[in-house]
Amino acid sequence: MTQQTLLDCHRRIKPYIHDTPVLSSRLINKEVGAEVFFKCENFQRAGAYKMRGATNAILQLTDEQCGKGVVTHSSGNFAQAVSLGAQSLGVAAHIVMPNIAPQVKKIGVLEYGGLIYECEPTLEARQTMADQVSQDTGATFLHPSNQLNVIIGQGTAAMELLAEQPDLNTIFCPVGGGGLIAGSALAAHYFGNECKVFGGEPFEADDAYRSLQSGILEGNETTDTIADGLRTTLGDVNFPIIQQHVSGIIRVTEAEIIAAMRMVWERMKIIIEPSSAVTVAALLRDRKHFQGQKVGIVISGGNVDLGNLPFHASI
Amino acid sequence: MTQQTLLDCHRRIKPYIHDTPVLSSRLINKEVGAEVFFKCENFQRAGAYKMRGATNAILQLTDEQCGKGVVTHSSGNFAQAVSLGAQSLGVAAHIVMPNIAPQVKKIGVLEYGGLIYECEPTLEARQTMADQVSQDTGATFLHPSNQLNVIIGQGTAAMELLAEQPDLNTIFCPVGGGGLIAGSALAAHYFGNECKVFGGEPFEADDAYRSLQSGILEGNETTDTIADGLRTTLGDVNFPIIQQHVSGIIRVTEAEIIAAMRMVWERMKIIIEPSSAVTVAALLRDRKHFQGQKVGIVISGGNVDLGNLPFHASI
Repeated sequence: MTQQTLLDCHRRIKPYIHDTPVLSSRLINKEVGAEVFFKCENFQRAGAYKMRGATNAILQLTDEQCGKGVVTHSSGNFAQAVSLGAQSLGVAAHIVMPNIAPQVKKIGVLEYGGLIYECEPTLEARQTMADQVSQDTGATFLHPSNQLNVIIGQGTAAMELLAEQPDLNTIFCPVGGGGLIAGSALAAHYFGNECKVFGGEPFEADDAYRSLQSGILEGNETTDTIADGLRTTLGDVNFPIIQQHVSGIIRVTEAEIIAAMRMVWERMKIIIEPSSAVTVAALLRDRKHFQGQKVGIVISGGNVDLGNLPFHASI
Repeated sequence: MTQQTLLDCHRRIKPYIHDTPVLSSRLINKEVGAEVFFKCENFQRAGAYKMRGATNAILQLTDEQCGKGVVTHSSGNFAQAVSLGAQSLGVAAHIVMPNIAPQVKKIGVLEYGGLIYECEPTLEARQTMADQVSQDTGATFLHPSNQLNVIIGQGTAAMELLAEQPDLNTIFCPVGGGGLIAGSALAAHYFGNECKVFGGEPFEADDAYRSLQSGILEGNETTDTIADGLRTTLGDVNFPIIQQHVSGIIRVTEAEIIAAMRMVWERMKIIIEPSSAVTVAALLRDRKHFQGQKVGIVISGGNVDLGNLPFHASI
């Protein structure tokens, strides 16, 4: 793993992804007391950064592997990303999804040509069904967050952000499975100017926070959070990268997530999903530590079920 | 009125406005059968194109007039624009708003330092109160859509769009008071390459459509539309410009407005207000006439009350 690994990955996936815009808002800067740069992966193809890692992983399969397709399990965004990435490259995509995944994410998978296999909403049920599909079809298993090719692909968003804003003091990422923050931490290490990386995580699914405290991989007994992309846990590939390169994880409440999401929608007129709002909430919660800094935030995605929003009437 | 009038206006207001991005979506292009370019005035300062006209009008006041402030009546976006524009230039802003205006728009006015005067939600009540305030304070009255300085300012959004996409066949604008479409039609006339301008208007407030049919200014008996920015009627300054330079107005139903708004939110991850969705709905309704064209759409604003959205649960 060198700087060149990331550069090669970026060159490889560039034709298949958007170089997403970096936006900012005077009103939010004023509110936070820092200069905040939002890397808008909600505008990425398939609506999330996951397109990067999925594309990188598929592009490194052999022709024989491509012929047998790919299989993954995902609560939603990686599922859409693998479907679209595989479709672009003429590869079959088998997608195991928990039966409680938002409807809008299932529709996305179908529109991009993925084949859905529904399972119970537990990590064990997902993996069991993915293994079965792999056995039946010969498809290669792609993990949404715990494979190095995927992690490196996810890191290209922070690479692009640093290319545009080389002097960032801090980059915030949400922490779910850990692929985005591990990749971003590698990008900050190789391309940043002493740029630190912080994670935002819901109190309701804070396995990464506890894992960093204890030094071993912790699980979640419950994951009762609106941030549906962050209900998964860290893995053995990304955890050591996170231990080495991430400065801290800030936990937030469900109310803080919803308030941050509403603030970004109202102020910036962009749609970010709850999992992305977690980082904004984390920055707001601990803003006194980031006063006067240049802060990057990777807005991970914008896939929201508009028929089921958490906003209440104002007044 | 010459090409130079628009160029001078653009140079004058440029330091006070954003040159907003032009976005597009493969999925929407496929749906429409045309190449569609969205000029994102929802990302404009104060969340709408109205910042352009308001700033142009204020910048042409004398010092004495500036000392006495400005007054306007507006259902919302022009109110915020005048407040912010006036604040930037150190001028007092008196804002007459209908008492049913969305809460988010009232808050915007207050945050930008405007003084709110509430009135009954009729055009007559608005004008009466604005006249009274003007008499009491000496403030100069700015009309949201029926003054040439305002109209020319609004036209700079289409100017910027044409600078980026000079070969547009058509530009769509929403039609409310008529300032945006009149300004855009002037911009298309002076800067387009045989670029036609079409309006989108709700059936529920179709005074512009009927005025173009009859040749005289028609009113609306009721204005029961979700597109709150389009409940006003054309004026005697913009109507002749519209008669001369606009190719047609396409009317849409309330259900079409809501569906178009949802499509843009879901596909593009940007927040557009119902008044802006009217143009997208108009293009979708008559898409067969625009097949294969390059179509620009001025997304007029993104000020929406998130506590009161029209979306229903999906499945």
